[in-house]
Amino acid sequence: MISTAPVPSLIGKRALLGLLLVLAQPAAAQRPTLEESFQQKISAERIGEYIKVLTAHPTFPGSAHTKEYAEWIRARLSEWGWDARIETWTVLFPRPVERVVELLGPKPFKARLFEPPVPGDPYSEQSAEHLPTYFIYGPDGDVTAPLVYANYGLREDYETLARAGVSVKGAIVIARSGRMWRGGKVELAAEHGAAAMLIYSDPAEDGYARGLPYPDGSWRTPDGVQRGSILNGKYPGDPLTPSVAATPGAKRLPIDSPDNTIARLPAMPLSYADATPLLAALGGETAPESWRGALPLTYRMGPSEARVHLKIKYDWSNTELYDVVGTIRGSTWPDEWIVRGNHHDGWVYGAQDPHSAHSAMLEEARALGELVRAGWAPKRTLVYASWDAEEQGTIGSTEWMEAHLADLNTKAVAYLNTDVIGPGTVRVTGASSLAQFITDIAQRITDPRSGVSVVDRARIKTEANAPTGGGPAGAAVFGVGVEYDIARSRLRFGPPGYGSDHHAFVSHAGIAALNLEFGDDLSLGAYHTVYDDFAWYERFGDPGFAYGRVTAQLNGAAVIGLADATILPVEFSAASDAVAEEIAKLKALYGRLRSAVANQNRLAALDAYRVLASPDHPRRPPDIAPIPVVDLAPLDAAAVKIRAAAERYGKAKEQSLTRTVAPARARAVNRLLVAVDRAALREGGLPGRPYYRNELFSPGRLWDTVPIPAVGDAMLDGDWKAAAAQVPLAAGTLLNIAAAIDAASAALEDVGR
Amino acid sequence: MISTAPVPSLIGKRALLGLLLVLAQPAAAQRPTLEESFQQKISAERIGEYIKVLTAHPTFPGSAHTKEYAEWIRARLSEWGWDARIETWTVLFPRPVERVVELLGPKPFKARLFEPPVPGDPYSEQSAEHLPTYFIYGPDGDVTAPLVYANYGLREDYETLARAGVSVKGAIVIARSGRMWRGGKVELAAEHGAAAMLIYSDPAEDGYARGLPYPDGSWRTPDGVQRGSILNGKYPGDPLTPSVAATPGAKRLPIDSPDNTIARLPAMPLSYADATPLLAALGGETAPESWRGALPLTYRMGPSEARVHLKIKYDWSNTELYDVVGTIRGSTWPDEWIVRGNHHDGWVYGAQDPHSAHSAMLEEARALGELVRAGWAPKRTLVYASWDAEEQGTIGSTEWMEAHLADLNTKAVAYLNTDVIGPGTVRVTGASSLAQFITDIAQRITDPRSGVSVVDRARIKTEANAPTGGGPAGAAVFGVGVEYDIARSRLRFGPPGYGSDHHAFVSHAGIAALNLEFGDDLSLGAYHTVYDDFAWYERFGDPGFAYGRVTAQLNGAAVIGLADATILPVEFSAASDAVAEEIAKLKALYGRLRSAVANQNRLAALDAYRVLASPDHPRRPPDIAPIPVVDLAPLDAAAVKIRAAAERYGKAKEQSLTRTVAPARARAVNRLLVAVDRAALREGGLPGRPYYRNELFSPGRLWDTVPIPAVGDAMLDGDWKAAAAQVPLAAGTLLNIAAAIDAASAALEDVGR
Repeated sequence: MISTAPVPSLIGKRALLGLLLVLAQPAAAQRPTLEESFQQKISAERIGEYIKVLTAHPTFPGSAHTKEYAEWIRARLSEWGWDARIETWTVLFPRPVERVVELLGPKPFKARLFEPPVPGDPYSEQSAEHLPTYFIYGPDGDVTAPLVYANYGLREDYETLARAGVSVKGAIVIARSGRMWRGGKVELAAEHGAAAMLIYSDPAEDGYARGLPYPDGSWRTPDGVQRGSILNGKYPGDPLTPSVAATPGAKRLPIDSPDNTIARLPAMPLSYADATPLLAALGGETAPESWRGALPLTYRMGPSEARVHLKIKYDWSNTELYDVVGTIRGSTWPDEWIVRGNHHDGWVYGAQDPHSAHSAMLEEARALGELVRAGWAPKRTLVYASWDAEEQGTIGSTEWMEAHLADLNTKAVAYLNTDVIGPGTVRVTGASSLAQFITDIAQRITDPRSGVSVVDRARIKTEANAPTGGGPAGAAVFGVGVEYDIARSRLRFGPPGYGSDHHAFVSHAGIAALNLEFGDDLSLGAYHTVYDDFAWYERFGDPGFAYGRVTAQLNGAAVIGLADATILPVEFSAASDAVAEEIAKLKALYGRLRSAVANQNRLAALDAYRVLASPDHPRRPPDIAPIPVVDLAPLDAAAVKIRAAAERYGKAKEQSLTRTVAPARARAVNRLLVAVDRAALREGGLPGRPYYRNELFSPGRLWDTVPIPAVGDAMLDGDWKAAAAQVPLAAGTLLNIAAAIDAASAALEDVGR
Repeated sequence: MISTAPVPSLIGKRALLGLLLVLAQPAAAQRPTLEESFQQKISAERIGEYIKVLTAHPTFPGSAHTKEYAEWIRARLSEWGWDARIETWTVLFPRPVERVVELLGPKPFKARLFEPPVPGDPYSEQSAEHLPTYFIYGPDGDVTAPLVYANYGLREDYETLARAGVSVKGAIVIARSGRMWRGGKVELAAEHGAAAMLIYSDPAEDGYARGLPYPDGSWRTPDGVQRGSILNGKYPGDPLTPSVAATPGAKRLPIDSPDNTIARLPAMPLSYADATPLLAALGGETAPESWRGALPLTYRMGPSEARVHLKIKYDWSNTELYDVVGTIRGSTWPDEWIVRGNHHDGWVYGAQDPHSAHSAMLEEARALGELVRAGWAPKRTLVYASWDAEEQGTIGSTEWMEAHLADLNTKAVAYLNTDVIGPGTVRVTGASSLAQFITDIAQRITDPRSGVSVVDRARIKTEANAPTGGGPAGAAVFGVGVEYDIARSRLRFGPPGYGSDHHAFVSHAGIAALNLEFGDDLSLGAYHTVYDDFAWYERFGDPGFAYGRVTAQLNGAAVIGLADATILPVEFSAASDAVAEEIAKLKALYGRLRSAVANQNRLAALDAYRVLASPDHPRRPPDIAPIPVVDLAPLDAAAVKIRAAAERYGKAKEQSLTRTVAPARARAVNRLLVAVDRAALREGGLPGRPYYRNELFSPGRLWDTVPIPAVGDAMLDGDWKAAAAQVPLAAGTLLNIAAAIDAASAALEDVGR
């Protein structure tokens, strides 16, 4: 076209030049916003550098370099303009001095309990620095007993063993990892009378069944061991200082107190190389199909004829933890805090867990510091925290929360957590009241792989998985995902969960928490092993650190928005959906448990346990039990009130948008909005677990995810009387939430007048 | 009581004596029926003896002892009073002279292709007598090519490979056995351009994943190979003599004719020991979760970098087959035949397959012979057949059927087949018109394990599995089962299937066939291996031969009832249900295929294949395709006619029960009842497959189970025009069935007047 066009006139040339200038320079309206400036500052390369620096050596509490790393983080925050300090706690941190797992009998075998170096991975060779393979917070023990296999070690697995006539009383129970918090598994084994517990990583979970083992691929090697905490779930944090910060002088529970969180059974984690000879020694009936993993053997229920010997002895010392906390004081409302956190400890190196996301948080802090230097004065106070000892039970964050609870109670607007990230779709959980706010930000961030916005990727994944006549077609091609709420056209926030540092903020303090993370599959085989190191991570975790970059962009932009909004950017329609969803899950649980009783009764009445069982595999019929009845209507009624309150607030918010709000009036509204989150707390806490106060979002007693846990836990334990008694109490808390929203609405309506 | 009673008077003593005599002798009404006499004669011990005698050496066609065994069977039938003879056929029976499967490249491996002796099993040591491991009826071949893994080798598996960009053109495809007839897998591999095929037995199917391998348990050893036929499915029987008996002088197709049933690709079966190094050599992407078996390796789609060499060369000779057929001539209607059959050939010994059930049939024949000697004169002619070469493609039964088709067409009332049995619930398939008749008999037979009736066991299993609010609770405890029709209070007959000797009788000749077998799980790991021998069978197959006994009792009682009934004991309500069920299955297939197209279009429109796929694992979007539309209403309309006809017959039958029917009039009704089965045949056969004439119960073109195969096969092949064109033709056949029932009703109504 250009080559055939006539030569333009001079005027034409000038006009063209003018047009080009306009295109080359942003118009006033197109000057980069604060958010855009922030986004441009985030560097993937720097994120990679932070990870490399902080994982040159192991990062677990008490390790040789942990204090040096904390100092390094503090120094960076200071350098970037933050008021940074280290807060130190003294917590119980037992380390094993003796570990034995061995098979006795005719084919003796002694477990290696060691993760050897892997070719081409220099980190894996620093064996002297590594933390041994063990579970923290189990008791000393020396047990010799037959072995019984309990699948995942869930409630229903013990039911299956009982039906098959296999007793776990006095036995060592071996279970595979997955499906439930490992501490819950140990507690259930104790409740069923076991003497000790072994938990191993089956290759079906994250070994060769999933892909090539490390170093050929990312997946668990035969020797890879999943370390972990087995806290019994009464509360998070230091096992000896519930509800108070673990300062050197804090009052401590004795180590042998039944009130602390130390597990009831000695327990050890095993690699599948170590577990194989033990599983091969099991006798008894072939395990049901759903119990079979990917090892090349016949999974049997046991017991074993040969006995297993487990011995574990700890040094019960304390260790110092280092939380690094940086602050930028708010210019308008300094006593309103936006708290952002990620832990810096790994089980060994922790390149993926936690440094994949920790490094993103550091890069946010750097970029925010630059913005402040360039003149930005955030209206609210920013608190960036790098926690210690998350892996042992969210200890660093819990102790800090306990130390600052009085301040947090009035000042904390929100807590933004991250932990582990990787390539793929955005994964958002936590405070649904911020769902629309986060969606609007994520819409402006580009997914590094596909080039569409982060929200569009979530939408496409969810729509691909939407059920159709032929089933969820997308799942087979791309994996399951429901990250988007199609009906509401926004990101769908799941419940917060309890596996990271927001745990205490949400469940004890009632603070709105967000987890804004990325990744289609974060379980890639290195979880809690020595191999989760930089060599592994740069190849398999987040190549090019592209998803580290978007994690920093999304969280940093959320912090900016929360810091500067006059009226906090919440609304309650998604939150009201979330309450309704928790009630729906409780009803589903109720239905499932009722049906289980009804089905067992039905099968017993049919004489099916006798008629259909093979003589080699007799089945013990369960006792006929009454079918439980619990009236859940009060919860529905309360949910209706919350929905109405949410609608009222929506209208008030819409009206207020046309008004300019003075800071003082905004402050009044915002205080009431923060109070909505606190209204989810039940006075005195949940039954038998005073630490846990959040009616909606506290963990179950086994640290599992249980809907309306005061009611749901009672159902799971078969205590139907308690479940019925808890319904009106839980409904009462929900009514408090509705009232708190109404109070905020009234204040906002005032502003609008 | 006796010691304290006064001495009875003389009169009292006499009266007591009389009472005792009455109790000791059955009253006239309590004299055992013919059926009861038969049942008492059946001996489990003798059944075990037959198996032991007939499996001392291999029993495959052409084996050293096969003729001797046929003579033994004939001699027994004669001894038991049957008019017995051997009918001999000359059929193509290639045996391999060279077999090579090897992995080339840096880690070369040569497959052993051999099933070694197992400690404690003397049969397994007779290696020189064993048939080598191979598939019969594939071509000679010598192929060197990369390997690609195709899961089970189903249509959808090739779709998955295509989406992942893995081509099978020119490759050797390796698939695991199961889910589909192996000949269909070879045909599909050929259709997708593969050069050769390997099919191996994954331990997930019937190896260590299911239970302890032989000899510790019943399950497949690492070296166990599933031999089998890979006929291409155009017709059963001798590949060179379609539709005519394979007499020495019969006209034969050339071996290289495209019209015969020899498969298109060279193919070999493998043990999992031999398959493991090959699977480990696969490159490419990790296979989807549903593709993973139980081997300790990462299942990948391929191709392999190293090439695989497969060479197979056959001796293309013929072999003689020996069908042993015994007859007892009917006293009233000698030209009405009740045919009963079971094959006597095994792939090697065949203790379970077929001798578990073959021995039961022999015991029936013995007991029936005794009844005849004791004075019973069956009204109809009994034909007991012991078939040869079932394993290679139901050859002995097919050739016999073809030789006697003219007679069978007018004379065959029913064919009762068995093949393999074991402990557990009754499994009934075939002619639903006999469902009530069989249920009534089975109600009088006791399940050996539970002591309840065979029908009650089926009912309890089905009720245990009935869907409830909490899901099919019984399934988890006892395995799935729907052997009973709860709504109709009778055994539920599945479609006949095509995997045994009733194949040609049903699909070509339109003869009512029954399979009355037992067993909850017949796949116990020895299938088509040398280890399916007496040593294995007496431990794991049917200990004590108790289910052999009930199989003989059920089939023999059915034969007696069919032989002596004045009006044949059929009714059509269950048959009408069965037609409706086939139509429902066709609709489900239609819906599934439509949804698959719609979902692919939807995903492509969402750009999901690009946005959601990992860069390491790109996905090729399929072409957007129009969503197919086929009007199935004519089938529903025809089914309504069949239901109405069934109801009319039911009323006529009820009326006739009060009348005595003269033999000549009964004969007229019975001829029309037999004609109902023949009415399911379509003149000229199914499109492209003239051999298959049964509109309802012919196999699909890949010998899979396809509802209304003329329509269903076209749908599966994506030929929607052909599917639409076939609907009225299929509906026409169904209307013929309705008309045939009506004709029988009219005749029976006449009898009732």
